Order: sequence, then C-alpha cells, then structure tokens
Amino acid sequence: MATNSPDEKWSTAEEEIMEATYQTLLVNGYAGLSISRIADEFGKSKAALYYHYDSKDDLLVAFLEFAVDRFESMISTETGENPTEDLEHVIEKLLPLQPDEEQRQLQEVLVGLRSQAVTNEAFREQFTRIDERLATTLGKIIQRGIDEGMFRDVDSTRVAEHILATVNGAMYARATTDRHNAPAAARVSLSSYIDSELRPTT
Amino acid sequence: MATNSPDEKWSTAEEEIMEATYQTLLVNGYAGLSISRIADEFGKSKAALYYHYDSKDDLLVAFLEFAVDRFESMISTETGENPTEDLEHVIEKLLPLQPDEEQRQLQEVLVGLRSQAVTNEAFREQFTRIDERLATTLGKIIQRGIDEGMFRDVDSTRVAEHILATVNGAMYARATTDRHNAPAAARVSLSSYIDSELRPTT
Repeated sequence: MATNSPDEKWSTAEEEIMEATYQTLLVNGYAGLSISRIADEFGKSKAALYYHYDSKDDLLVAFLEFAVDRFESMISTETGENPTEDLEHVIEKLLPLQPDEEQRQLQEVLVGLRSQAVTNEAFREQFTRIDERLATTLGKIIQRGIDEGMFRDVDSTRVAEHILATVNGAMYARATTDRHNAPAAARVSLSSYIDSELRPTT
Repeated sequence: MATNSPDEKWSTAEEEIMEATYQTLLVNGYAGLSISRIADEFGKSKAALYYHYDSKDDLLVAFLEFAVDRFESMISTETGENPTEDLEHVIEKLLPLQPDEEQRQLQEVLVGLRSQAVTNEAFREQFTRIDERLATTLGKIIQRGIDEGMFRDVDSTRVAEHILATVNGAMYARATTDRHNAPAAARVSLSSYIDSELRPTT
C-alpha cells in the first residue's frame, strides 16, 4: 500500500491518518473536528499529523481527495458489465435509498465540509474537482451505453450533470431536512427519467 | 402592510428588520452576520431587534420564512396561465440560468444557513418547511397540467421532488464549486426531462 504508483498515491501513514480523520468526523461531526481528536484516533502526537499536513484545512482537503479516490476505486471494481446497471450502481452508492447510520453521518459531514467551500478557496477547488470527477464517471458510463447501442444518442455530459445535480440535491435535503420520503421520491423519478431518456425507442 | 390577514402576517417593523437582515447577509455573508450589523442597517438599537426576536438564530429562522413567503407571493402573482410556462418560471426563479450578483450572493447565504440545519433543530425544521412548500408549489402546477390534459398522468409528487432535488443540487454546486457550466447543463437536461416526461405522447 506504500507504493507511489498513480493508483496508490497514498502512503501507509497517510492512509492511517485519513482513516483516523474519517472515524473522528463520524463521531464528532465537522463542527467537533480537531487535530487533537484526530491525533488521539491516529494514536500518535499532533506533531506527527503536522509532519504530513500543514493545517486542519490542509488535512481535510486531503481527506476529501482520499474519499473520492476510494469511491472511484470501488466504482471501477464494481462496474463495467452493463451500462444501465452501472449507472444505477453509482447512483445507489452516491444516494443510497436506505442509508445506514454511517452513510447518514458521512453525508452530514460532507454538507458541513462543503458549506466551507462558499468562502474557502482550497475547499472550493476540491469540491470542484470532486463534482468534476463524479460527472466524468457518470458521463463515461452513459457514453459507453451510447457506443454499445444500449442508450439513445443523448448528450452524455448534460445527462451526467442532471443526474449529479439530482443526487447532490437529494443528499443535501436528506442531511438538512426531515423530509424522509423526498430523497426516495426523487430517486424513483430519476430512475424513470434514465429509463425514458436513455432507452432507445423501439 | 401591518394587517394580520394570513397573507400579510408580517408587521411593518418585522418587514423592515427582514429587509435589514437581507441587506446585511448580502454584504457580510452568513459568517459575518451579527445582531449589531443588522441593527446598524435597521437604523435602531440592538434592543429594538431583541424586542422582536430572542436571538440571532430566532431572527434567521424568521428571515427564512419571510423569504419563502415573498417567493410564494411572487410566484402566485406571476403564474397561473400555462402549466408548462409556470413550471419553467418557478425553476428559473429558483435556479436562474444567468444569476446576477445579488442572486449569487443570496444562494451562497442560503448554503451557509442551510448547513446549520445539520445540527440546529430550528433551522432544520425551517428548511423542512421550505422544501415542503416548494415541492407543493411545483406539485400543484404539475397536477394542474394533468387535470387540464396538458401533461401526462404522471405521479406529480415524485416529479416535483425530482425537479426540486435537481434545482437544489445545481444551486448547491453553483455556490460551492467553480464548475460554471454545470448548473446550466443540468437545467437544460431538466427542461428536456420535463418535456419528455410530462408531454402527452401523441
């Protein structure tokens, strides 16, 4: 795991810090996060963290990149057979129909982090890259479906942005409202949209 | 304006405080908001504000309700002729294709306020009500289109939730990323979805 190949750009120490950050975020939320708490979870001193990251923000920006790397790595392992199923798979990973407690907490943490992007340039750049990578992942699946004749010849970029916006909006609503049925309703409608928009008319 | 009819539930003083809050939020953002700054903008003492609102959070919760009241009042004035056009009108108001500076700032303010809803119960209740009212507004237009035979007999609730999630997600992305073309791409795709999903097949 400590190699420097493009796919494994995270050192073992960095991976451990990222895992410690993740656990600390789940327990304390974004508001309760501190370098001290991450160091406690990491089982080393604060100095050990500062050796790798200049500041809490620096560490959190790295954490976001780590999370997307993990997500993409998982997606690339679990998809590739059937564009329709792959699309549903990515959507389910981004917006689980029935999220467990950890997924809920992660979504709330991401909303806290993302709100910082309004004023914090480093966070904004990172969320720009995250959305770009997610839109690219979705767009590639759609384009593959078109190339293989399974989807109609739609504008894969636009459809990808539409799916990403719907997923992000529903996730946002789940973390910031008590409208428990709304995300599922949006998901069901999104699936029927994918069916009607992408399926070739026969 | 100081009557107590259901449509005009805000007193003149309350309306002035809400206007002062809005201006202060536009200038200082959510992070820079204080009762002192609102009082300065209002042209009265902090005590005058505390006479109406117990705390900054209390005032901000009222501000959110005021903003939605205003939005609904505007929508009810500007719609009612053609369900397809009405739907596009509401979407354009929620997610302008080319937002001006004030609209951008308002969206950033809303993202800051909404992130508080993850941990603040009063904010969460208010955003629950806001999304509920927006989904109801969208659902009613869709239902009217169905009743008038202009739309297919879709599930108006689900379609409304889908539209709201897409609009909220695109607005969220606009405020937290530099992906300048993404919201417009999602909007264009949303419009073609509305066309394909709602238009009767002839």
